[in-house]
Amino acid sequence: MKLTARSRLLLVLALAILSLCLSVSSASDWDTEREERGGQSAGRQGEGEQEQGRYSSSGRPYHYGEESFKYRTTTRHGRFRVLERFTHELLRDSPVGDRRVAVLEAAPRAFLQPSHYDADEVFYVREGEGVVVMLWKGKRQSFCVREGDVMVIPAGATVYSANTHDSRWFRVVMLLNPVSTPGRFGEFFPVGSGERQESFFGAFSDDILQASFNARKEEVEKVFEESSEGEITQAPEEQIRALSKSCSSSRGSGSGSRSEQDFKPTSIASKKPRYSNNHGRLSEITGDECPHLRRLDMEVGLANITRGSMMAMSYSTRATKIAVVVEGNGYFEMACPHMSGSSSRRSERRREREQEHGSEQERRERQEREHEQSSEEERRREREQGQREGGQKSRGYRQVGANIKEGSVIVLPAAHPATFVAGGDGNLAVLCFGVGAERDEKVFLTGKNSPLRQLVEEDEAARKLVFGERAQEAEKLVRGQSDDVFVRGPRQRQSGVADM
Amino acid sequence: MKLTARSRLLLVLALAILSLCLSVSSASDWDTEREERGGQSAGRQGEGEQEQGRYSSSGRPYHYGEESFKYRTTTRHGRFRVLERFTHELLRDSPVGDRRVAVLEAAPRAFLQPSHYDADEVFYVREGEGVVVMLWKGKRQSFCVREGDVMVIPAGATVYSANTHDSRWFRVVMLLNPVSTPGRFGEFFPVGSGERQESFFGAFSDDILQASFNARKEEVEKVFEESSEGEITQAPEEQIRALSKSCSSSRGSGSGSRSEQDFKPTSIASKKPRYSNNHGRLSEITGDECPHLRRLDMEVGLANITRGSMMAMSYSTRATKIAVVVEGNGYFEMACPHMSGSSSRRSERRREREQEHGSEQERRERQEREHEQSSEEERRREREQGQREGGQKSRGYRQVGANIKEGSVIVLPAAHPATFVAGGDGNLAVLCFGVGAERDEKVFLTGKNSPLRQLVEEDEAARKLVFGERAQEAEKLVRGQSDDVFVRGPRQRQSGVADM
Amino acid sequence: MKLTARSRLLLVLALAILSLCLSVSSASDWDTEREERGGQSAGRQGEGEQEQGRYSSSGRPYHYGEESFKYRTTTRHGRFRVLERFTHELLRDSPVGDRRVAVLEAAPRAFLQPSHYDADEVFYVREGEGVVVMLWKGKRQSFCVREGDVMVIPAGATVYSANTHDSRWFRVVMLLNPVSTPGRFGEFFPVGSGERQESFFGAFSDDILQASFNARKEEVEKVFEESSEGEITQAPEEQIRALSKSCSSSRGSGSGSRSEQDFKPTSIASKKPRYSNNHGRLSEITGDECPHLRRLDMEVGLANITRGSMMAMSYSTRATKIAVVVEGNGYFEMACPHMSGSSSRRSERRREREQEHGSEQERRERQEREHEQSSEEERRREREQGQREGGQKSRGYRQVGANIKEGSVIVLPAAHPATFVAGGDGNLAVLCFGVGAERDEKVFLTGKNSPLRQLVEEDEAARKLVFGERAQEAEKLVRGQSDDVFVRGPRQRQSGVADM
Repeated sequence: MKLTARSRLLLVLALAILSLCLSVSSASDWDTEREERGGQSAGRQGEGEQEQGRYSSSGRPYHYGEESFKYRTTTRHGRFRVLERFTHELLRDSPVGDRRVAVLEAAPRAFLQPSHYDADEVFYVREGEGVVVMLWKGKRQSFCVREGDVMVIPAGATVYSANTHDSRWFRVVMLLNPVSTPGRFGEFFPVGSGERQESFFGAFSDDILQASFNARKEEVEKVFEESSEGEITQAPEEQIRALSKSCSSSRGSGSGSRSEQDFKPTSIASKKPRYSNNHGRLSEITGDECPHLRRLDMEVGLANITRGSMMAMSYSTRATKIAVVVEGNGYFEMACPHMSGSSSRRSERRREREQEHGSEQERRERQEREHEQSSEEERRREREQGQREGGQKSRGYRQVGANIKEGSVIVLPAAHPATFVAGGDGNLAVLCFGVGAERDEKVFLTGKNSPLRQLVEEDEAARKLVFGERAQEAEKLVRGQSDDVFVRGPRQRQSGVADM
Repeated sequence: MKLTARSRLLLVLALAILSLCLSVSSASDWDTEREERGGQSAGRQGEGEQEQGRYSSSGRPYHYGEESFKYRTTTRHGRFRVLERFTHELLRDSPVGDRRVAVLEAAPRAFLQPSHYDADEVFYVREGEGVVVMLWKGKRQSFCVREGDVMVIPAGATVYSANTHDSRWFRVVMLLNPVSTPGRFGEFFPVGSGERQESFFGAFSDDILQASFNARKEEVEKVFEESSEGEITQAPEEQIRALSKSCSSSRGSGSGSRSEQDFKPTSIASKKPRYSNNHGRLSEITGDECPHLRRLDMEVGLANITRGSMMAMSYSTRATKIAVVVEGNGYFEMACPHMSGSSSRRSERRREREQEHGSEQERRERQEREHEQSSEEERRREREQGQREGGQKSRGYRQVGANIKEGSVIVLPAAHPATFVAGGDGNLAVLCFGVGAERDEKVFLTGKNSPLRQLVEEDEAARKLVFGERAQEAEKLVRGQSDDVFVRGPRQRQSGVADM
Repeated sequence: MKLTARSRLLLVLALAILSLCLSVSSASDWDTEREERGGQSAGRQGEGEQEQGRYSSSGRPYHYGEESFKYRTTTRHGRFRVLERFTHELLRDSPVGDRRVAVLEAAPRAFLQPSHYDADEVFYVREGEGVVVMLWKGKRQSFCVREGDVMVIPAGATVYSANTHDSRWFRVVMLLNPVSTPGRFGEFFPVGSGERQESFFGAFSDDILQASFNARKEEVEKVFEESSEGEITQAPEEQIRALSKSCSSSRGSGSGSRSEQDFKPTSIASKKPRYSNNHGRLSEITGDECPHLRRLDMEVGLANITRGSMMAMSYSTRATKIAVVVEGNGYFEMACPHMSGSSSRRSERRREREQEHGSEQERRERQEREHEQSSEEERRREREQGQREGGQKSRGYRQVGANIKEGSVIVLPAAHPATFVAGGDGNLAVLCFGVGAERDEKVFLTGKNSPLRQLVEEDEAARKLVFGERAQEAEKLVRGQSDDVFVRGPRQRQSGVADM
């Protein structure tokens, strides 16, 4: 009996220890866990959505599906959702690690209560039309915006806005640049609606409120804490008309003060494209046109890829791009040296063909697993290699890719070759926020301006040194693509090379 | 017997495991623990000091009492103490996370040994007068400073200084901007005093010292390692007079070389205030007047709030302010969305009034607990919400507030509405180091220039949309406060609104 | 039996827990462990190499021996190795924490395949001569470089290069400034060589490659994935000649387009030195001569210290320097306040002489141990001190030093006094990458321009206050060193002070 009791005690103790250890484990692995879980669930959800199961992995940490957004507000008049932070070790200290992507959707005639953010806001109107009123440096400025417009709102400016359309939704994609705490932003509403949305005045003591407004606290509470019917409400038609009346004149005209000109929205959609052909067009707004973008070291681009066509493989030399699909669907692929455990999908496949062991399902699972663990593994491997001097790391690139659709977010780090392909149903429009835009160049890997073509055509010695016996084939190959920037897509091509 | 032995072994083993697990736990939770402990002890100590127990929480991580300073030097001739680092996750990556606050106090006729820092130094003379001699780029410059002066000393400059007064202490508040390791700075003393304060020459080998000075090591040791009587000593009157003689002429006059002009102290106290009324005045030194501040992306402000009055609720749009109370006492309050678990103190109280359960003491403890855990909780909640799509985070602001007195430090992040109230005993003077000052604007939430007043007066449609049926009351309310920037305080007001 | 079974179960359980706890422990202590291990192994290896065992510690985290490099490529035609990241807490957030040091060595007539990096590259030719061809903004530019040249290659530029010499190796030291992920960089090779070195095209799907090149995937694979014989191969003489022909004219002449001028290599070795005497010379390239360096906030210096001489003790006021020994051997010493547990080696020794207990060996081990743990200890101590108010931290500086030779890397944080001594076998050449170079000043602690000499000569009052009774000795001492910047070394001096 005595022994049994002791054993029981031990069992209880050991279990307590076990649970303690587990809780320690979960605490210290918290970030990893979340990332893995996020990755897996995204993968799982994503797979369901994928038409053909083209990509076995989720594309993390470079691709985020709609499930990676969290709602901050959902009412029948509108929604506001924010993409999770870029906490993966490859991104958290990168130029985009501090920024946040958000999407606002407002029902017809929705009114959005005044507020200010502790973040600069760069937004793009994806659909519909609206009015944005900014109270800034003692001035009231109002701007009418519509589909295709880009606008910058400085941190701390008080803004209210409305969907000015009777029947269409007003949808906006934004990149937020937090100024007080990297990666976090708060919304500050002066007027609350009781339970749902508080007024920030509610955080102050009664006597301070009374002194501030020189009024009784009941008056202050009534007016500021309970007046509004919610963050997003529906407005009567005549009030919407009144709101937007004031801004109609300033649009497009050269009038308006200097500071109005500064904030005025620019239509990226109707800008003369920087590149354009049958397969797509690319428009950009840079710091030259918008000084606010320059101060944020940003530029905004809009790529419209024709149905079935693709954007030529390319990379940015300095900017990290946050791409948001604003129309259509398709897929993207990118080559990543940082994630490479050992080798690319292609060379792995080649090896497998030779070895012919294991099912396709197992390979996928392994790949997914490796994908998620790659950075930890990479570090372990680097550490081990550091110990045996002269060790050599094999060079390889891992494919990151995913099917994408409206609302997908893709991060393209500088120098990483990537491509977008439009699906067969319609055009694919991708909005790109470029962060770290100063002195950035875009390099296309095929077509007339590709460095490879330059090498082959201008430097005979290098051509031979690089391609050896295949120098002639190489010359033919780099000349094979006659289109620049936007090219015929994979499926369009299947109808035959001969039709060139 | 055998079983008993085994059981004992297991017990020992399990205990060993337990202690191991605990040590792991304490290692991985180190930072959290420290923060919590700091917070709690601050809270406990703070409560004792608080006259009325107005604030139940410590105000962390935005408020630091004197107990958060650590002494680096204490002798009867002077003291140097440094505020702990801003390690809380809401601050460590913020614009002020790398900076340090320090306070130097020198007794009458104290002399401070020459040294250089690996940090830029922006200092404000809080009390007394002194002489600062700077050896910089092969030149000796000396500056007389007195109460209310602001001066910048560049990283790496050799500086020595003295209290030039016979009977008053010389007190200085400084913000340090480390250049080699963020959040850390070191002082480099060429001349030591034996045990207490070493010479940095002491870290070099004998033969290197001999070669450096072309002298025997005994000579070097004697002169550099033992000459001084300590970092802060008392100087004879005639030497103090000699030190300060050289600088008297340069003060205020337009003479002096370009670089002397650069470093010359500016009196913020005697500057024409940017705002001023019966309730207080606000003076500022910006990058326009002091190019060194511009390079550090800083500005310095001094708010002097009349006894019993308050500074109107306001926020900075981009700058994070580090406020140091340099005179008087009172309290501050701030609204924080980032710390909000669920709701503000006010709405919580409202709920409690309805529910009427739990003692006041319990509520306080709970609030304190929530306060300290809020960020961890917030993350957990965010994680959970991310999993059930469409979940909605309720919006709320937590009150951060504390009683403050000479030596209190308050961090005000950009965009966070806050207010200071002067106590009933005398004026409250608050020095503000603004970090991230470029393009910063100050927004006041009451008075003529408040965005709310603009909204109500200039936009009838918005007034109705925002305040609904209470539009008229709102109009009256936002016009109720006729003062700007500094206003009548809560207790002054209690004598009645009628006296307006 | 039943009890035994239970006990066994418990034992198994407890062991499982034990292993779990251990794995948790190793996961959470990973960084610390690596640093300690790195430090210890470096120390151990280093000691073997040290002629006289002058330094007992490894010099971490400020000194890195050759064993701290990891090879990314090793073939008989060349090698590419990269220094480990600066992950120590004193460096990871410092101005150099994001940067990487690398060394490239190419055999005679070696050809390096085209690639681009996601990092800016500042390189110095340590030995030999080569040709660097850059494909950038649609232009092909080729540059001949030779020993002593400094050149900047912008992130994302496609570059290939060759050793143009028949019999000498081509050796290059470079500092990389990653643009996509701090502290990491990837190389992107368009043309692969099968297993060893992959093409980044290999990471894309077959149909995307086909569409991109408008060719069959077999052609693409053949040309891009298997053409090259490896990252570094040997080239026939006539091809090397062809490669370098195009660049010969542009060198040194004033011709060439604006952008060619920009990237043109500058010879730091043949520049007029900024300082020069019998004991050494110092040359520099700053942002004034090279706008690319300014954009990277960098400058490059080359100190050539005569055999047996030394560089005078000095510090940089703002820049953190990464010094790489490019010729010869010797040693360095530096004074560090941040690492100081309690006191410098000297004052510790003094105490020991008095106490006379413990063997030399024990002292060394203790010192090594303290050295590695100092930062953790420092934090613990700071924490403890924070709790008992008025506690005082004793000031001291720890000596960091190590024997150095070709390939050693030393990090010199801003404001930290340091010195280099050339060994007795030949000159010591040290290349310095200065990061954070804007407004940086170099301060020498001995010689005519030292702040101490200024103090002693220009300020009588201060001289007395600082040195007390020893003011006269001090005056003599600071005048004892007649040389500036480079001075007679410790061994040269041993022949006597009398020979002055």
